[in-house]
Amino acid sequence: MTASVRHELLGIGNAIVDVLARCDDAFLAREGLAKGMMTLIDTPTADRLYGRMGPGVEVSGGSAANTMAAFASCGGAGAFIGKVRDDQLGQVFRHDIRAAGIAYDTPPAVDGPPTARCLILVTPDAQRTMQTFLGACVNLGPEDIEHETVAGAAVTYLEGYLFDPPRAKEAFRAAARVAHGAGRLVSLSLSDPFCVNRHRDDFRALVRDEVDVLFANEHEIMALYEAADFDTAMQAVRAETRIACLTRSEKGSVIVADGEVHVIDAVRTSVVDTTGAGDAYAAGFLFGLTRGWPLARCGRAGAIAAGEAISHFGARPAVPLAPLVAAA
Amino acid sequence: MTASVRHELLGIGNAIVDVLARCDDAFLAREGLAKGMMTLIDTPTADRLYGRMGPGVEVSGGSAANTMAAFASCGGAGAFIGKVRDDQLGQVFRHDIRAAGIAYDTPPAVDGPPTARCLILVTPDAQRTMQTFLGACVNLGPEDIEHETVAGAAVTYLEGYLFDPPRAKEAFRAAARVAHGAGRLVSLSLSDPFCVNRHRDDFRALVRDEVDVLFANEHEIMALYEAADFDTAMQAVRAETRIACLTRSEKGSVIVADGEVHVIDAVRTSVVDTTGAGDAYAAGFLFGLTRGWPLARCGRAGAIAAGEAISHFGARPAVPLAPLVAAA
Repeated sequence: MTASVRHELLGIGNAIVDVLARCDDAFLAREGLAKGMMTLIDTPTADRLYGRMGPGVEVSGGSAANTMAAFASCGGAGAFIGKVRDDQLGQVFRHDIRAAGIAYDTPPAVDGPPTARCLILVTPDAQRTMQTFLGACVNLGPEDIEHETVAGAAVTYLEGYLFDPPRAKEAFRAAARVAHGAGRLVSLSLSDPFCVNRHRDDFRALVRDEVDVLFANEHEIMALYEAADFDTAMQAVRAETRIACLTRSEKGSVIVADGEVHVIDAVRTSVVDTTGAGDAYAAGFLFGLTRGWPLARCGRAGAIAAGEAISHFGARPAVPLAPLVAAA
Repeated sequence: MTASVRHELLGIGNAIVDVLARCDDAFLAREGLAKGMMTLIDTPTADRLYGRMGPGVEVSGGSAANTMAAFASCGGAGAFIGKVRDDQLGQVFRHDIRAAGIAYDTPPAVDGPPTARCLILVTPDAQRTMQTFLGACVNLGPEDIEHETVAGAAVTYLEGYLFDPPRAKEAFRAAARVAHGAGRLVSLSLSDPFCVNRHRDDFRALVRDEVDVLFANEHEIMALYEAADFDTAMQAVRAETRIACLTRSEKGSVIVADGEVHVIDAVRTSVVDTTGAGDAYAAGFLFGLTRGWPLARCGRAGAIAAGEAISHFGARPAVPLAPLVAAA
């Protein structure tokens, strides 16, 4: 360890404004959308789909950014790095993450594509299907990674989606290097099974060589190891990482770490919209980890934060998480 | 009556994107905000307040525009006239009102101030306090009033807030003239007691000479007649209008029309956010009126739509209103 900790958690990810709308399964089928998945779309596709979807609600999103907002809501001190443009949606993103209590100083792009949008279609079963237009996120590069910020963060948390915009991948690697150079922890979320399929070899190497704390849901971890069942994937990841948190929706989560294995129940709640459940889980878990809580308690904090996220429309917390996770 | 009806209801109003955030009463006090009211603010004030308020949710708003979205949700055929700029929030407004099923063809302004925003602070008691930056709304003028659209609408519905942007007032008067020239009905919502105080003489003349169906809450109608109590204001308006719908929050509403007086109960529901309650009431009432329902049933439809609006965060309907109002 070098200098003192400035932030407990630094999130690096795509800076996205979500556009949430309700739809039925027939709409997904008609538009040929892969239910429950995140698909990257280009500008014409985004315009066409937006034109067809119902009235929307705009809320700041982005996987790691959601985690940071939830981490701050737990009571943690955090920072975020991600790229918007100098447009209205960029202002919305900047306002919201700062208002959540997160330090955010990445300079906006002054030209190029607009701030990223994710068109999120929520079906009556509360599942979310995401179509992401990456926009200004493609302009995140190593030059946006402030070494001091990374070196001063106890944990640097990276979303797997960062492997999609090409220069962000370099930023990602630069951040991991700086963090480990400063004796800090590196945490990664695999984000999405399609994303894992796009970048499997890179992710396999990263998990083996760089990642201290891995987050993945069962579909993602099975995709990573091309495993036919959850247990096979769990055994594989157990051999390779220090800590892995494997989330399984209503089945709860499994935490594997060295000799330890913990099976944590999901929090029972009425499910309104599953957007951001994994992001919130990571926030609760890392909040506990940065406080030195035992792993099982970290897992319970993650489950509590995820339970809050799915109980309402939109990914970011609707109520302060601090009193909830304190009871974990 | 002249040509056939193209739309049952035409709304003309300010085209606004709402930015909703939760706050406590101490925040309102600290910022010197008039709780429960709508206050007009300039750009520096909007920027300052936005910088201080919590994370927001963006949803299309505007009083008459909300009414139109709720009217379409009831199953009515409607159109809207209002001015945005050609910016991202303008695109959001256009998308949402069209996606709600409302015809909307007002050309956006290509220069001048950006699309209007209303910063809405929701306190734990579910009251909303609104600070409006009118932005591009000041560019609505008589040239935006398509005579054919007005003449083809069974009812033209105008929000009192239109008296704030100076040229919109001219547009408002032009629309009322065209509507009456075509033998159609003109409906007005008084919008807000502060707004009534700003334009009392104009509103008094309008109510007496032009308005066929008036909507006002008890504070607005008392402000209009400078009456000390509700009953005095009710007797005054009864002498002057064909139909007046006077809403009283949890006390329900009173409808006065020629010889008729109806007292309609509010729908009991858990109150989350009162934004848009009056807008939704007008939608439900006018939906019934354009179908020739008896006034008491129109009032019950209004109460049902208002009950839906206050049961969730945000002004526009979260569920289809058609099956609900059909049971009125």
